[in-house]
Amino acid sequence: MKTKKFAVILAGCGLYDGSEIHEATLALYFISKHGAEYDIFAPDIMQHHVVNHITGEEMNEKRKVLNEAARIARGNIKPLKQFDAAQYDGLVLPGGYGAAKNLCTYAFDGINCNVNEEVADAIRKMKNHNKPIGALCIAPVILAKVLGNIVVTIGNDPATAENIKKFGARHKETGNGEIAVDEKNKIVTTPCYMLDATIAQIGDGIDALIKAMLELM
Amino acid sequence: MKTKKFAVILAGCGLYDGSEIHEATLALYFISKHGAEYDIFAPDIMQHHVVNHITGEEMNEKRKVLNEAARIARGNIKPLKQFDAAQYDGLVLPGGYGAAKNLCTYAFDGINCNVNEEVADAIRKMKNHNKPIGALCIAPVILAKVLGNIVVTIGNDPATAENIKKFGARHKETGNGEIAVDEKNKIVTTPCYMLDATIAQIGDGIDALIKAMLELM
Repeated sequence: MKTKKFAVILAGCGLYDGSEIHEATLALYFISKHGAEYDIFAPDIMQHHVVNHITGEEMNEKRKVLNEAARIARGNIKPLKQFDAAQYDGLVLPGGYGAAKNLCTYAFDGINCNVNEEVADAIRKMKNHNKPIGALCIAPVILAKVLGNIVVTIGNDPATAENIKKFGARHKETGNGEIAVDEKNKIVTTPCYMLDATIAQIGDGIDALIKAMLELM
Repeated sequence: MKTKKFAVILAGCGLYDGSEIHEATLALYFISKHGAEYDIFAPDIMQHHVVNHITGEEMNEKRKVLNEAARIARGNIKPLKQFDAAQYDGLVLPGGYGAAKNLCTYAFDGINCNVNEEVADAIRKMKNHNKPIGALCIAPVILAKVLGNIVVTIGNDPATAENIKKFGARHKETGNGEIAVDEKNKIVTTPCYMLDATIAQIGDGIDALIKAMLELM
Protein backbone atom coordinates (compact mmCIF):
# COMPACT_ATOMS: atom_id res chain seq x y z
CA MET A 1 0.00 0.00 0.00
CA LYS A 2 1.28 3.44 -0.92
CA THR A 3 2.46 5.52 2.04
CA LYS A 4 -0.17 8.10 2.95
CA LYS A 5 0.92 11.70 2.86
CA PHE A 6 -0.44 14.50 5.02
CA ALA A 7 -0.14 18.24 4.52
CA VAL A 8 0.08 20.25 7.76
CA ILE A 9 -0.62 23.99 7.78
CA LEU A 10 1.15 25.96 10.50
CA ALA A 11 0.49 29.52 11.69
CA GLY A 12 3.77 30.50 13.37
CA CYS A 13 5.48 29.09 16.47
CA GLY A 14 3.97 29.56 19.93
CA LEU A 15 0.41 29.39 21.23
CA TYR A 16 -0.23 33.13 21.76
CA ASP A 17 0.80 34.37 18.31
CA GLY A 18 1.38 31.23 16.23
CA SER A 19 0.76 27.49 16.18
CA GLU A 20 0.45 25.73 19.52
CA ILE A 21 3.78 23.87 19.63
CA HIS A 22 2.65 20.71 21.44
CA GLU A 23 -0.31 20.25 19.08
CA ALA A 24 1.78 20.85 15.96
CA THR A 25 4.62 18.58 17.09
CA LEU A 26 2.33 15.77 18.25
CA ALA A 27 0.42 15.94 14.94
CA LEU A 28 3.73 15.35 13.11
CA TYR A 29 4.67 12.65 15.62
CA PHE A 30 1.46 10.63 15.25
CA ILE A 31 1.46 10.97 11.45
CA SER A 32 4.96 9.46 11.48
CA LYS A 33 4.12 6.93 14.21
CA HIS A 34 1.22 5.58 12.14
CA GLY A 35 3.51 5.04 9.15
CA ALA A 36 2.54 8.09 7.11
CA GLU A 37 4.54 11.09 5.89
CA TYR A 38 4.00 14.84 5.94
CA ASP A 39 4.87 18.08 4.25
CA ILE A 40 4.53 21.32 6.18
CA PHE A 41 3.13 24.58 4.81
CA ALA A 42 2.44 28.08 6.10
CA PRO A 43 1.25 31.28 4.44
CA ASP A 44 4.12 33.67 3.68
CA ILE A 45 2.63 36.61 5.59
CA MET A 46 3.52 38.71 8.63
CA GLN A 47 2.24 37.50 12.00
CA HIS A 48 -0.64 39.63 13.29
CA HIS A 49 1.67 40.46 16.21
CA VAL A 50 4.37 39.03 18.49
CA VAL A 51 3.46 38.11 22.08
CA ASN A 52 5.80 37.71 25.05
CA HIS A 53 4.86 34.19 26.18
CA ILE A 54 5.72 34.91 29.82
CA THR A 55 3.77 38.14 30.34
CA GLY A 56 1.18 37.70 27.58
CA GLU A 57 1.91 41.25 26.42
CA GLU A 58 2.42 42.34 22.83
CA MET A 59 6.07 42.98 21.90
CA ASN A 60 7.40 45.69 19.61
CA GLU A 61 8.67 43.17 17.04
CA LYS A 62 7.69 41.86 13.64
CA ARG A 63 7.96 38.20 12.67
CA LYS A 64 6.91 36.20 9.61
CA VAL A 65 4.49 33.29 9.92
CA LEU A 66 6.45 31.13 7.45
CA ASN A 67 9.85 31.78 9.08
CA GLU A 68 8.65 31.12 12.63
CA ALA A 69 6.68 28.04 11.58
CA ALA A 70 9.97 26.81 10.05
CA ARG A 71 11.22 26.37 13.64
CA ILE A 72 8.63 23.61 14.18
CA ALA A 73 9.30 22.26 10.67
CA ARG A 74 13.10 22.15 11.17
CA GLY A 75 13.43 24.34 8.07
CA ASN A 76 11.53 21.86 5.91
CA ILE A 77 8.52 24.03 5.02
CA LYS A 78 6.89 25.44 1.89
CA PRO A 79 4.85 28.58 1.26
CA LEU A 80 1.16 27.64 1.29
CA LYS A 81 0.67 29.05 -2.21
CA GLN A 82 2.64 25.99 -3.45
CA PHE A 83 0.10 23.58 -1.92
CA ASP A 84 -1.36 21.10 -4.43
CA ALA A 85 -4.30 19.14 -3.02
CA ALA A 86 -3.81 16.37 -5.59
CA GLN A 87 -0.53 15.39 -3.93
CA TYR A 88 -1.92 14.78 -0.41
CA ASP A 89 -4.20 12.24 1.22
CA GLY A 90 -5.17 14.44 4.15
CA LEU A 91 -4.83 17.96 5.59
CA VAL A 92 -4.23 18.86 9.25
CA LEU A 93 -4.58 22.27 10.92
CA PRO A 94 -3.12 22.46 14.46
CA GLY A 95 -4.46 25.12 16.84
CA GLY A 96 -3.08 27.95 18.90
CA TYR A 97 -4.05 31.62 18.66
CA GLY A 98 -2.07 31.84 15.42
CA ALA A 99 -4.83 29.80 13.73
CA ALA A 100 -7.32 32.49 14.84
CA LYS A 101 -5.02 35.51 14.30
CA ASN A 102 -2.89 34.66 11.25
CA LEU A 103 -4.85 32.01 9.29
CA CYS A 104 -8.09 33.89 9.86
CA THR A 105 -9.29 36.88 11.92
CA TYR A 106 -11.62 34.95 14.26
CA ALA A 107 -9.76 36.12 17.39
CA PHE A 108 -10.67 39.72 16.53
CA ASP A 109 -13.81 39.58 14.39
CA GLY A 110 -15.66 36.49 15.66
CA ILE A 111 -18.38 35.41 13.22
CA ASN A 112 -17.46 38.29 10.90
CA CYS A 113 -13.96 36.89 10.44
CA ASN A 114 -12.12 36.51 7.15
CA VAL A 115 -10.06 33.44 6.32
CA ASN A 116 -6.70 33.79 4.56
CA GLU A 117 -7.48 32.99 0.91
CA GLU A 118 -4.68 30.39 0.57
CA VAL A 119 -5.94 28.60 3.68
CA ALA A 120 -9.56 28.68 2.51
CA ASP A 121 -8.50 27.45 -0.93
CA ALA A 122 -6.52 24.51 0.52
CA ILE A 123 -9.51 23.48 2.65
CA ARG A 124 -12.00 23.77 -0.24
CA LYS A 125 -9.78 21.80 -2.60
CA MET A 126 -9.24 18.94 -0.14
CA LYS A 127 -13.02 18.83 0.43
CA ASN A 128 -13.64 18.80 -3.33
CA HIS A 129 -11.17 15.93 -3.67
CA ASN A 130 -13.16 14.11 -0.95
CA LYS A 131 -10.04 13.85 1.23
CA PRO A 132 -10.11 14.00 5.04
CA ILE A 133 -9.37 17.24 6.90
CA GLY A 134 -8.39 17.32 10.58
CA ALA A 135 -8.42 20.38 12.81
CA LEU A 136 -7.25 20.82 16.42
CA CYS A 137 -8.16 23.18 19.25
CA ILE A 138 -9.60 26.44 17.80
CA ALA A 139 -8.80 25.54 14.15
CA PRO A 140 -12.20 23.83 13.61
CA VAL A 141 -13.78 27.32 13.48
CA ILE A 142 -11.85 27.87 10.23
CA LEU A 143 -13.36 24.70 8.76
CA ALA A 144 -16.85 25.77 9.92
CA LYS A 145 -16.42 29.23 8.40
CA VAL A 146 -15.13 27.88 5.06
CA LEU A 147 -17.27 24.75 4.66
CA GLY A 148 -20.47 25.64 6.53
CA ASN A 149 -22.60 22.52 7.01
CA ILE A 150 -20.18 20.16 8.78
CA VAL A 151 -19.86 18.67 12.29
CA VAL A 152 -16.92 19.79 14.44
CA THR A 153 -15.85 20.00 18.07
CA ILE A 154 -13.95 22.64 20.02
CA GLY A 155 -14.62 20.86 23.32
CA ASN A 156 -17.32 22.53 25.42
CA ASP A 157 -16.95 26.33 25.19
CA PRO A 158 -20.53 27.63 24.75
CA ALA A 159 -19.64 30.96 23.05
CA THR A 160 -17.40 29.33 20.44
CA ALA A 161 -19.91 26.50 19.91
CA GLU A 162 -22.61 29.14 19.32
CA ASN A 163 -20.47 30.90 16.70
CA ILE A 164 -19.82 27.57 14.96
CA LYS A 165 -23.60 27.13 14.66
CA LYS A 166 -23.87 30.63 13.17
CA PHE A 167 -21.45 29.48 10.44
CA GLY A 168 -24.05 26.81 9.58
CA ALA A 169 -22.08 23.96 11.17
CA ARG A 170 -23.04 21.67 14.06
CA HIS A 171 -21.03 21.42 17.26
CA LYS A 172 -20.42 18.15 19.10
CA GLU A 173 -19.33 18.45 22.72
CA THR A 174 -16.21 16.44 23.58
CA GLY A 175 -13.87 15.83 26.51
CA ASN A 176 -10.10 15.37 26.80
CA GLY A 177 -8.65 12.95 24.27
CA GLU A 178 -11.92 12.65 22.35
CA ILE A 179 -12.57 13.40 18.69
CA ALA A 180 -15.61 14.32 16.59
CA VAL A 181 -15.83 12.48 13.26
CA ASP A 182 -18.07 13.80 10.47
CA GLU A 183 -17.85 10.72 8.23
CA LYS A 184 -19.95 12.16 5.40
CA ASN A 185 -17.70 15.22 5.02
CA LYS A 186 -14.51 13.48 6.22
CA ILE A 187 -13.91 16.10 8.90
CA VAL A 188 -12.12 15.03 12.14
CA THR A 189 -11.65 17.46 15.04
CA THR A 190 -10.34 17.32 18.62
CA PRO A 191 -10.40 19.98 21.36
CA CYS A 192 -6.77 19.80 22.59
CA TYR A 193 -5.93 22.91 24.66
CA MET A 194 -9.45 24.37 24.23
CA LEU A 195 -9.89 22.23 27.37
CA ASP A 196 -7.71 22.23 30.47
CA ALA A 197 -5.52 19.24 29.60
CA THR A 198 -2.17 17.55 30.17
CA ILE A 199 0.14 17.08 27.21
CA ALA A 200 -0.53 13.31 27.47
CA GLN A 201 -4.24 14.02 26.90
CA ILE A 202 -3.35 16.27 23.95
CA GLY A 203 -1.45 13.31 22.51
CA ASP A 204 -4.42 10.97 23.05
CA GLY A 205 -6.72 13.25 21.06
CA ILE A 206 -4.26 13.75 18.21
CA ASP A 207 -3.44 10.02 18.08
CA ALA A 208 -7.17 9.30 17.68
CA LEU A 209 -7.56 12.07 15.09
CA ILE A 210 -4.73 10.82 12.86
CA LYS A 211 -6.01 7.22 13.13
CA ALA A 212 -9.54 8.34 12.17
CA MET A 213 -8.19 10.35 9.22
CA LEU A 214 -6.21 7.35 7.98
CA GLU A 215 -9.38 5.22 8.12
CA LEU A 216 -11.18 7.83 5.99
CA MET A 217 -8.46 7.77 3.29
CA MET B 1 3.45 6.13 45.23
CA LYS B 2 4.23 9.82 45.01
CA THR B 3 4.09 11.25 41.49
CA LYS B 4 7.60 11.67 40.11
CA LYS B 5 8.60 15.17 39.09
CA PHE B 6 11.03 16.08 36.34
CA ALA B 7 12.78 19.39 35.73
CA VAL B 8 13.38 20.18 32.05
CA ILE B 9 15.95 22.82 31.04
CA LEU B 10 15.26 24.55 27.72
CA ALA B 11 17.60 26.73 25.64
CA GLY B 12 15.18 28.75 23.48
CA CYS B 13 12.75 27.64 20.77
CA GLY B 14 13.99 26.24 17.46
CA LEU B 15 16.81 23.86 16.55
CA TYR B 16 19.26 26.37 15.05
CA ASP B 17 19.34 28.90 17.91
CA GLY B 18 17.37 27.27 20.73
CA SER B 19 15.92 23.96 21.90
CA GLU B 20 14.98 21.44 19.23
CA ILE B 21 11.18 21.67 19.37
CA HIS B 22 10.32 18.02 18.64
CA GLU B 23 12.78 16.78 21.27
CA ALA B 24 11.57 19.24 23.90
CA THR B 25 7.89 18.59 23.23
CA LEU B 26 8.26 14.81 23.10
CA ALA B 27 10.22 14.88 26.37
CA LEU B 28 7.28 16.66 28.03
CA TYR B 29 4.85 14.27 26.30
CA PHE B 30 6.54 11.07 27.50
CA ILE B 31 7.03 12.43 31.03
CA SER B 32 3.27 13.05 31.14
CA LYS B 33 2.41 9.81 29.31
CA HIS B 34 4.35 7.79 31.92
CA GLY B 35 2.36 9.39 34.73
CA ALA B 36 4.95 11.91 35.91
CA GLU B 37 4.94 15.70 36.05
CA TYR B 38 7.36 18.41 34.99
CA ASP B 39 8.48 21.96 35.62
CA ILE B 40 10.31 23.83 32.88
CA PHE B 41 13.34 26.09 33.39
CA ALA B 42 15.65 28.18 31.23
CA PRO B 43 18.47 30.58 32.00
CA ASP B 44 17.37 34.22 31.81
CA ILE B 45 20.01 35.25 29.29
CA MET B 46 20.11 36.55 25.71
CA GLN B 47 20.28 33.96 22.94
CA HIS B 48 23.73 33.77 21.33
CA HIS B 49 21.98 34.84 18.11
CA VAL B 50 18.76 34.46 16.12
CA VAL B 51 18.75 32.22 13.03
CA ASN B 52 16.31 32.30 10.11
CA HIS B 53 15.15 28.66 10.11
CA ILE B 54 14.52 28.65 6.35
CA THR B 55 17.82 30.07 5.11
CA GLY B 56 20.02 29.14 8.07
CA GLU B 57 21.34 32.70 8.13
CA GLU B 58 21.79 34.86 11.20
CA MET B 59 19.10 37.55 11.61
CA ASN B 60 19.59 41.07 12.92
CA GLU B 61 17.40 40.46 15.97
CA LYS B 62 17.81 39.86 19.67
CA ARG B 63 15.75 37.33 21.61
CA LYS B 64 15.84 36.06 25.19
CA VAL B 65 16.35 32.34 25.92
CA LEU B 66 13.75 32.35 28.73
CA ASN B 67 11.08 34.19 26.71
CA GLU B 68 11.45 32.04 23.60
CA ALA B 69 11.59 28.82 25.65
CA ALA B 70 8.29 30.00 27.17
CA ARG B 71 6.70 29.28 23.78
CA ILE B 72 7.39 25.56 24.26
CA ALA B 73 6.41 25.82 27.93
CA ARG B 74 3.08 27.59 27.17
CA GLY B 75 4.21 30.39 29.48
CA ASN B 76 4.71 28.03 32.41
CA ILE B 77 8.46 28.43 32.88
CA LYS B 78 10.84 29.58 35.61
CA PRO B 79 14.27 31.21 35.49
CA LEU B 80 16.89 28.51 36.04
CA LYS B 81 18.33 30.37 39.04
CA GLN B 82 15.15 29.31 40.91
CA PHE B 83 15.90 25.61 40.35
CA ASP B 84 16.05 23.56 43.57
CA ALA B 85 17.39 20.03 43.02
CA ALA B 86 15.72 18.81 46.24
CA GLN B 87 12.29 19.28 44.63
CA TYR B 88 12.88 17.06 41.59
CA ASP B 89 13.33 13.36 40.93
CA GLY B 90 15.07 13.79 37.58
CA LEU B 91 16.51 16.39 35.20
CA VAL B 92 16.18 16.38 31.38
CA LEU B 93 18.14 18.45 28.85
CA PRO B 94 16.71 18.38 25.30
CA GLY B 95 19.04 19.14 22.39
CA GLY B 96 19.18 21.55 19.48
CA TYR B 97 21.96 24.03 18.75
CA GLY B 98 20.67 26.18 21.63
CA ALA B 99 22.07 23.57 24.03
CA ALA B 100 25.50 24.10 22.42
CA LYS B 101 25.19 27.88 21.90
CA ASN B 102 23.20 29.19 24.88
CA LEU B 103 23.62 26.59 27.66
CA CYS B 104 27.30 26.23 26.86
CA THR B 105 29.72 27.41 24.16
CA TYR B 106 30.48 23.98 22.66
CA ALA B 107 29.27 25.01 19.17
CA PHE B 108 32.01 27.66 19.06
CA ASP B 109 34.74 26.51 21.41
CA GLY B 110 34.60 22.69 21.22
CA ILE B 111 36.53 21.09 24.07
CA ASN B 112 37.45 24.54 25.41
CA CYS B 113 33.79 25.39 25.95
CA ASN B 114 32.31 26.98 29.03
CA VAL B 115 29.01 25.83 30.53
CA ASN B 116 26.51 28.38 31.84
CA GLU B 117 27.03 28.36 35.60
CA GLU B 118 23.33 27.85 36.44
CA VAL B 119 23.20 24.87 34.08
CA ALA B 120 26.41 23.36 35.49
CA ASP B 121 25.15 23.92 39.02
CA ALA B 122 21.81 22.19 38.30
CA ILE B 123 23.62 19.17 36.81
CA ARG B 124 26.11 18.91 39.69
CA LYS B 125 23.39 19.19 42.32
CA MET B 126 21.23 16.48 40.74
CA LYS B 127 24.31 14.24 40.54
CA ASN B 128 25.14 14.95 44.19
CA HIS B 129 21.55 14.06 45.12
CA ASN B 130 22.07 10.76 43.20
CA LYS B 131 19.11 11.58 40.94
CA PRO B 132 18.94 10.59 37.25
CA ILE B 133 19.87 13.04 34.51
CA GLY B 134 18.77 12.58 30.91
CA ALA B 135 20.22 14.39 27.89
CA LEU B 136 19.17 14.33 24.23
CA CYS B 137 20.97 14.93 20.93
CA ILE B 138 24.02 17.20 21.50
CA ALA B 139 23.16 17.92 25.17
CA PRO B 140 25.18 14.93 26.46
CA VAL B 141 28.36 16.95 25.73
CA ILE B 142 27.28 19.32 28.53
CA LEU B 143 27.02 16.40 30.96
CA ALA B 144 30.43 15.09 29.82
CA LYS B 145 32.02 18.53 30.28
CA VAL B 146 30.50 19.07 33.75
CA LEU B 147 30.70 15.54 35.18
CA GLY B 148 33.71 14.04 33.40
CA ASN B 149 33.83 10.30 34.00
CA ILE B 150 30.40 9.16 32.78
CA VAL B 151 29.06 7.14 29.83
CA VAL B 152 26.99 8.99 27.21
CA THR B 153 25.89 8.68 23.58
CA ILE B 154 25.50 11.25 20.83
CA GLY B 155 24.88 8.54 18.22
CA ASN B 156 27.84 7.85 15.98
CA ASP B 157 29.54 11.16 15.09
CA PRO B 158 33.30 10.44 15.44
CA ALA B 159 34.44 14.06 16.05
CA THR B 160 31.90 14.67 18.82
CA ALA B 161 32.60 11.24 20.33
CA GLU B 162 36.31 12.10 20.38
CA ASN B 163 35.63 15.39 22.21
CA ILE B 164 33.48 13.55 24.74
CA LYS B 165 36.48 11.30 25.48
CA LYS B 166 38.66 14.39 25.95
CA PHE B 167 36.24 15.51 28.68
CA GLY B 168 37.10 12.24 30.46
CA ALA B 169 33.80 10.54 29.59
CA ARG B 170 33.18 7.39 27.56
CA HIS B 171 31.08 7.33 24.39
CA LYS B 172 28.71 4.51 23.51
CA GLU B 173 27.63 4.30 19.88
CA THR B 174 23.86 4.08 19.37
CA GLY B 175 21.31 4.00 16.54
CA ASN B 176 17.85 5.51 16.09
CA GLY B 177 15.56 5.07 19.07
CA GLU B 178 18.33 3.65 21.26
CA ILE B 179 19.59 4.93 24.61
CA ALA B 180 22.80 4.68 26.60
CA VAL B 181 22.30 4.03 30.31
CA ASP B 182 25.11 4.70 32.80
CA GLU B 183 23.50 3.00 35.79
CA LYS B 184 26.25 3.86 38.26
CA ASN B 185 26.01 7.58 37.57
CA LYS B 186 22.29 7.53 36.64
CA ILE B 187 22.94 9.18 33.29
CA VAL B 188 20.62 8.34 30.36
CA THR B 189 21.25 9.72 26.86
CA THR B 190 19.77 9.26 23.37
CA PRO B 191 20.99 10.60 20.00
CA CYS B 192 17.72 12.02 18.57
CA TYR B 193 18.47 14.37 15.65
CA MET B 194 22.25 13.81 15.94
CA LEU B 195 21.24 10.98 13.59
CA ASP B 196 19.12 11.24 10.45
CA ALA B 197 15.78 10.24 11.95
CA THR B 198 12.02 10.48 11.59
CA ILE B 199 10.06 12.17 14.37
CA ALA B 200 8.61 8.71 15.23
CA GLN B 201 12.18 7.49 15.88
CA ILE B 202 12.86 10.60 18.00
CA GLY B 203 9.81 9.63 20.05
CA ASP B 204 11.03 6.04 20.44
CA GLY B 205 14.35 7.23 21.89
CA ILE B 206 12.77 9.72 24.27
CA ASP B 207 10.12 7.22 25.38
CA ALA B 208 12.93 4.77 26.27
CA LEU B 209 14.94 7.53 28.00
CA ILE B 210 12.06 8.65 30.23
CA LYS B 211 11.23 5.02 31.12
CA ALA B 212 14.88 4.32 32.00
CA MET B 213 15.05 7.47 34.14
CA LEU B 214 11.89 6.48 36.02
CA GLU B 215 13.45 3.06 36.75
CA LEU B 216 16.51 4.81 38.18
CA MET B 217 14.39 6.95 40.56
